[in-house]
Amino acid sequence: MPSSTRNNPVESTEQKVRDNFGRQSFMVTLGAIMTAVGRGKVEIQFPFNSQLTQQNGFAHAGTITSIMDSACGYAALTVAPEDCDVLSVEFKANFVAPALGERFIARAEVKRAGRTITVSAADAFAVNQGQEKLIATMLATIMNMPAKK
Amino acid sequence: MPSSTRNNPVESTEQKVRDNFGRQSFMVTLGAIMTAVGRGKVEIQFPFNSQLTQQNGFAHAGTITSIMDSACGYAALTVAPEDCDVLSVEFKANFVAPALGERFIARAEVKRAGRTITVSAADAFAVNQGQEKLIATMLATIMNMPAKK
Amino acid sequence: MPSSTRNNPVESTEQKVRDNFGRQSFMVTLGAIMTAVGRGKVEIQFPFNSQLTQQNGFAHAGTITSIMDSACGYAALTVAPEDCDVLSVEFKANFVAPALGERFIARAEVKRAGRTITVSAADAFAVNQGQEKLIATMLATIMNMPAKK
Amino acid sequence: MPSSTRNNPVESTEQKVRDNFGRQSFMVTLGAIMTAVGRGKVEIQFPFNSQLTQQNGFAHAGTITSIMDSACGYAALTVAPEDCDVLSVEFKANFVAPALGERFIARAEVKRAGRTITVSAADAFAVNQGQEKLIATMLATIMNMPAKK
Repeated sequence: MPSSTRNNPVESTEQKVRDNFGRQSFMVTLGAIMTAVGRGKVEIQFPFNSQLTQQNGFAHAGTITSIMDSACGYAALTVAPEDCDVLSVEFKANFVAPALGERFIARAEVKRAGRTITVSAADAFAVNQGQEKLIATMLATIMNMPAKK
Repeated sequence: MPSSTRNNPVESTEQKVRDNFGRQSFMVTLGAIMTAVGRGKVEIQFPFNSQLTQQNGFAHAGTITSIMDSACGYAALTVAPEDCDVLSVEFKANFVAPALGERFIARAEVKRAGRTITVSAADAFAVNQGQEKLIATMLATIMNMPAKK
Repeated sequence: MPSSTRNNPVESTEQKVRDNFGRQSFMVTLGAIMTAVGRGKVEIQFPFNSQLTQQNGFAHAGTITSIMDSACGYAALTVAPEDCDVLSVEFKANFVAPALGERFIARAEVKRAGRTITVSAADAFAVNQGQEKLIATMLATIMNMPAKK
Repeated sequence: MPSSTRNNPVESTEQKVRDNFGRQSFMVTLGAIMTAVGRGKVEIQFPFNSQLTQQNGFAHAGTITSIMDSACGYAALTVAPEDCDVLSVEFKANFVAPALGERFIARAEVKRAGRTITVSAADAFAVNQGQEKLIATMLATIMNMPAKK
């Protein structure tokens, strides 16, 4: 870690989150990028891609779920103790409109951070010509785990 | 449809499910195949692939969720009215062990088929040297929709 | 219905919701009252009661769930077609702090109203000396049903 | 504890579970009794009671949820370390048929017991003239907590 971030916990946490995200090969496969990181908040996006669709040509629910899951987990990581990694215990997702758009955005926010368990919520949006439409929503349970050295 | 299946509803339903699955590009991206279809039951598998991993090198929760979701939906489709397609209303998944294995299997079964709403449950397993280990479980709500012509 | 409400859809919807709530005997058993009704929003409260507790003397998770469920359903009813009743298809609730307080409040809001399916979210709070603390959160799926005559 | 149970872990666990259940005042309010306890399995029932109904005279979803929640938690308690209590982290319940019957039974089973987190599943049935009908199903996450002395 560069010494310049040692005294900047915010930058340090963001870097930790972005480094961790960079190790999720599946996010690369989805073409997903992390477009925002803040305290208790993370945003992840990916562009429409015909290799990620279900039978009707919409993005597969699993792809939308994947960016919501990652966003919920990383939102939790921003508020976890410094030496902790996070783990998805479970999540629930509702799909409220077809995943039809040029790109898809998941925005997650921590609802309550506990010592062991953190609850995050995420909404997912389809973007068409700059207009966002809610397509899914998630409520997730994340556990803090001592990070492997 | 070959005339030989016209008078065989079971074969016809299996073919409808397999045709529909064949149109899910995302399943191809995962390397997923449908390894069993029965009345109210579907099994989907995919092999470990380093392009589908999370930060620790395990399969991403989103990939396991995706095959459980597809398996739950197709299990519902096997018992849906003939002219219906199905839609994931929502699901909840618990992750009980790391997705570490040579391949991953989702087995879904319909718990209760209604006129509009079907509830399916799925378990997911990691396979190592022929041994299966439970890694996740899902409870899903699926809606019957008149199929688009 | 009194003629005075015939020409006032807002008042009429609120009355419909309050009448329906008044028929939920279980809410009487909980001592629950509906303290707010608006378009897509409902609030329900009940006071602490030692007959509603779990093993440690906190309000049972089932009681908190019950007012969140009713609040989610009634929030959906405020935006349902006029001749429809609503039905809980499913819900998921997270419990983030002990239900310890003088009274408990559930506040539900519709996240997305569809023709058949509505998604509502609720938060539950424990109130102590005027201070509210988040104790639980719910994400619920509600179905519109033609009302029985 | 009678000395006769000191050397009988099974009886001791059952007694621990039944004692704990006996302290849930809300179960008394529901008229609920624990009708079976085994390793990783618990059954709880309550009779229909017009004070526990929703607007159509069926048992309120919250009452069915309550016995499923308690059954899931106690099933987890039967496999928890001896000095642990359990806590509902979250649950998800689907309601598949109206809660219309003479009595209602929740049967819970542990799906996977971990060191910290246990996953239980429950089904709920309405009983009419000796016939059981599935009305609801739950998937629950329970956490082991060091018991308070």
